[in-house]
Amino acid sequence: MKPVTHIKIKNGMSVNELIRQMDASGVLGGGRLAKAVNISEAMINDRDCKVFLGLAGPLVPGGMREILIDLMETGWIDAVVTTGATLTHDLGEALGYRHYQGDADASDEELNKQGFDRVYESYMPNKIYEGMDDFIARNFDKLKDFKSIKDFLWKIGELTPAKSMLKSCFEKKIPIFCPAISDSGIGLMLWGQLAKGRKVEARAFEDLKEIMDIAWTAKKTGVIYLGGGVPKNYIQQAMQLAPNSAEYGVQITMDRPEPGGSSGAELKEGISWGKMNPKAQYVDLICDATIALPIIFAALKERIGNHQKL
Amino acid sequence: MKPVTHIKIKNGMSVNELIRQMDASGVLGGGRLAKAVNISEAMINDRDCKVFLGLAGPLVPGGMREILIDLMETGWIDAVVTTGATLTHDLGEALGYRHYQGDADASDEELNKQGFDRVYESYMPNKIYEGMDDFIARNFDKLKDFKSIKDFLWKIGELTPAKSMLKSCFEKKIPIFCPAISDSGIGLMLWGQLAKGRKVEARAFEDLKEIMDIAWTAKKTGVIYLGGGVPKNYIQQAMQLAPNSAEYGVQITMDRPEPGGSSGAELKEGISWGKMNPKAQYVDLICDATIALPIIFAALKERIGNHQKL
Amino acid sequence: MKPVTHIKIKNGMSVNELIRQMDASGVLGGGRLAKAVNISEAMINDRDCKVFLGLAGPLVPGGMREILIDLMETGWIDAVVTTGATLTHDLGEALGYRHYQGDADASDEELNKQGFDRVYESYMPNKIYEGMDDFIARNFDKLKDFKSIKDFLWKIGELTPAKSMLKSCFEKKIPIFCPAISDSGIGLMLWGQLAKGRKVEARAFEDLKEIMDIAWTAKKTGVIYLGGGVPKNYIQQAMQLAPNSAEYGVQITMDRPEPGGSSGAELKEGISWGKMNPKAQYVDLICDATIALPIIFAALKERIGNHQKL
Amino acid sequence: MKPVTHIKIKNGMSVNELIRQMDASGVLGGGRLAKAVNISEAMINDRDCKVFLGLAGPLVPGGMREILIDLMETGWIDAVVTTGATLTHDLGEALGYRHYQGDADASDEELNKQGFDRVYESYMPNKIYEGMDDFIARNFDKLKDFKSIKDFLWKIGELTPAKSMLKSCFEKKIPIFCPAISDSGIGLMLWGQLAKGRKVEARAFEDLKEIMDIAWTAKKTGVIYLGGGVPKNYIQQAMQLAPNSAEYGVQITMDRPEPGGSSGAELKEGISWGKMNPKAQYVDLICDATIALPIIFAALKERIGNHQKL
Repeated sequence: MKPVTHIKIKNGMSVNELIRQMDASGVLGGGRLAKAVNISEAMINDRDCKVFLGLAGPLVPGGMREILIDLMETGWIDAVVTTGATLTHDLGEALGYRHYQGDADASDEELNKQGFDRVYESYMPNKIYEGMDDFIARNFDKLKDFKSIKDFLWKIGELTPAKSMLKSCFEKKIPIFCPAISDSGIGLMLWGQLAKGRKVEARAFEDLKEIMDIAWTAKKTGVIYLGGGVPKNYIQQAMQLAPNSAEYGVQITMDRPEPGGSSGAELKEGISWGKMNPKAQYVDLICDATIALPIIFAALKERIGNHQKL
Repeated sequence: MKPVTHIKIKNGMSVNELIRQMDASGVLGGGRLAKAVNISEAMINDRDCKVFLGLAGPLVPGGMREILIDLMETGWIDAVVTTGATLTHDLGEALGYRHYQGDADASDEELNKQGFDRVYESYMPNKIYEGMDDFIARNFDKLKDFKSIKDFLWKIGELTPAKSMLKSCFEKKIPIFCPAISDSGIGLMLWGQLAKGRKVEARAFEDLKEIMDIAWTAKKTGVIYLGGGVPKNYIQQAMQLAPNSAEYGVQITMDRPEPGGSSGAELKEGISWGKMNPKAQYVDLICDATIALPIIFAALKERIGNHQKL
Repeated sequence: MKPVTHIKIKNGMSVNELIRQMDASGVLGGGRLAKAVNISEAMINDRDCKVFLGLAGPLVPGGMREILIDLMETGWIDAVVTTGATLTHDLGEALGYRHYQGDADASDEELNKQGFDRVYESYMPNKIYEGMDDFIARNFDKLKDFKSIKDFLWKIGELTPAKSMLKSCFEKKIPIFCPAISDSGIGLMLWGQLAKGRKVEARAFEDLKEIMDIAWTAKKTGVIYLGGGVPKNYIQQAMQLAPNSAEYGVQITMDRPEPGGSSGAELKEGISWGKMNPKAQYVDLICDATIALPIIFAALKERIGNHQKL
Repeated sequence: MKPVTHIKIKNGMSVNELIRQMDASGVLGGGRLAKAVNISEAMINDRDCKVFLGLAGPLVPGGMREILIDLMETGWIDAVVTTGATLTHDLGEALGYRHYQGDADASDEELNKQGFDRVYESYMPNKIYEGMDDFIARNFDKLKDFKSIKDFLWKIGELTPAKSMLKSCFEKKIPIFCPAISDSGIGLMLWGQLAKGRKVEARAFEDLKEIMDIAWTAKKTGVIYLGGGVPKNYIQQAMQLAPNSAEYGVQITMDRPEPGGSSGAELKEGISWGKMNPKAQYVDLICDATIALPIIFAALKERIGNHQKL
């Protein structure tokens, strides 16, 4: 048994130096945060491993957009599954809109009159929908004939006038999946085009085929979940069906396991399903993603550097 | 200001009698549980109100299947949005499989060998997938030419050999939506047919049109959310776009609001978005759905009776 | 393995009939609620078992006062450990004050001006302190020479002009302990007397001796925890030191286990400490106490009746 | 309104540089973590402000002991309130025992046989009690005649053979309060001496007088809560009674506010009670303390340096 070595703070220590101290403590939130860094590092450095990233929760309204873009640029990620909300927020910012620092106790009625949509204490200007609608309408001819949602999203990324998570996915050819795209602002904009008599095709099962192919052909797989929801579950079912279950797993969530939902389920539960390998390295980190992600990414950058995975 | 009247327990009291006592207390979990009953009753009894029900979390593995079927039969619900998991669990039971009382501390590796998939402390036999695959394959000719996911689900309900939530939705003509159907066992079975060269069409945006139509044409709307995820968000965006926002709201979740995700967001947040009417009656109940739903449904049955909404 | 039998709701069913249905489901929140009833029933009906009740959280502001008094009157409980807050709220109501139904989003600055202390969405009138101070001052001669905090609390109960939890404990001779009494309104009132030059003696270790004696001399022990904090921990350490660890355990809390604090710790953790018997019947119920307690007590009353434990 | 500036990670950035980025994002967990640093810095640098620190939860088993000792040495803290558990863990380590990195899924029955007490995933060797008992017995003559619990704790600190949190409090003359000392291993050891016929005096109300004096004579006050329980509540009631309520507040907890308990209550609730100044700078950070404390302390050290508060 290893003793808990107490964390020692030095003046001016780097994020990774702090994580090394947390690693020596080895227990509870701090120890698990360090373990999340270690496992992420191991899966990224494992050349045989395809890394799947699931994104749920208000990452862009929460200030994580540059980190996500940076993460796509590193080459560390092989496939992304996301909610439609994050795509909407990402595209909105690429079109020049911003999110704002707000107040969780503000009057929602007043915010509604002022045109701000509240995301706990972050505000999204409602005008974002007009900008997106205009963007979709202007580019409709280039967007209408996509075969899969992934191809559609890459096309959006290509057309986006400024840097964005979608643009990085397009440029780096990282497959990005959004199984519930109709449940989002982008989905609504497409539906708006439909309502005008234009034709949009969205073959949900094309994407399923593609993510399955990545999981089936990978020698090894690793999963990183920021939040739960469809993104986590969609990756989990790919792991379940693939011949090899995941060998690395990092989950960051504030949901609890006892109600039994997929979002809060501990990663070890996946072993029963054949989603997670019984010998896998994995950790469940109970932490707000806007705290954990910047720390983990800063520590990884310090360890792995800016160079891309080979 | 109304005083907190302390709950008084009488021997043999009915569920609704207990809820009336909780209503008199008026605060915290107990008070909110009573408020959830009151608001549900009000929206069901309001003839002008269309009631939208969002279903997320392990409701069938958690013993809620009969209540859900019963709820569909009452005529109280006008539209359902669900995860694919609940449809999978529901269909599995209709095909003769059961879920089992398990142990959250069991060895997941051992369960995997025995063919059981763990949902916290409920077990699903993995054989369920074979049964579903067989069912889909046998009925494929009747399933392949659906226009929307909703029509496909109704057809499944029609074909199901025993009573089920889907069958009740079909028989009562309750539109049931599953925006992320590809993220589920049923989705996988369809994909399996595709892999065999069969053609499946799933027009995600047809469903969006239909749920929007219900929201747009309703004089009033009410929402009931068991858990969050895509089901809640999909209904919320219908409320956002409709000319009238929801006038009744009941949310039952164990997720917390501070991380900012849609699942844990308090209903009042929806006022800023135009999803919830500033004058709406609404309540956020922080409770496991497998505790709250049976109590609320028992109290409602006692109040409203078995008669259908007129 | 037992299958999950789905809960079936009948019109007008009693609380215990509903609990029997939840028991048949056997999993997640509903199943655990039923298990909490079963284990409570077993420990109450076990003549050899001494039942320890730990009380934390806003039970009186939450409408639980009549249930607590009723519970003391049943003879089911052999020892109580509580926070000082519950004693303060209980005494305040016995002196004629009430708690009020409030709003979690109210202006706290405004409430302060109006003289109301907020407990999430329950309000306590600040005047309660004057009434208590007056009560303590008037009765000081009878209160000053207590040997232990328990004796002091019984004396308060005896002197209380109306029925109260403390009065019931006094009349039924149920030892009631409050290790952190100085951390409460009652503690402050005593300190106020001290400040006026009066002498108050509080021998903390007398109480420790008494609770240890109960635990040591019991053939068997059972524990019921509403919330965590000092009440739970104080009973847990009595279980730890006693020759026999607890054979029954029911814990009701909303705290989570991962941060490692005593309040959120699962009961099974107590096995390592020798607090809980490895063969004990126990359950962790993740639920707001103001929901769970009325339901459990109603079901128990229906099962055991009003008759006192023999 | 300030826009959410997305966090940008640089290679090798220091903890405080990361916090500055989180500060620019300004929302959700990351933004609140930065705010916790800012407010802590402000209260420490405010020469008129007395800083009260409340300690609850498994800080020593969680690897925080060196940080706590370091924090006492900085001179930033003017009064500490703690659970007895932290004192027990601190003294145990000072006597040469260690905590160990364990497994939350380990067999508690097996751990019990091996003599390890589990604290989620940290293990405490049960032998710690023997060592403490021996230490107390050997030093009993020097410990028996303390006037207050605080004086007793300082004496323990003086006698401790190695550096410890208690020793630092003694040497730096930081008053340290433990209202529920009888609810702890140290309390049990004292009770053991009593059982041997020795006399121990613990005047709970002496401590109340002393903490009140600090709060009453301070020009300004600030509060930092790691966890809730008695430590938070005891400081809160000192704030309530003092003529000036707290002007700075930082709370770090994983408990949620809706059940209404003191531990999970948002700091703003304290405004209604007169515990928190309506104009105070305060923040509620929902985070595991073993993640938040090292980060906050590292950032503060970088900002304020090692020099003591003047």
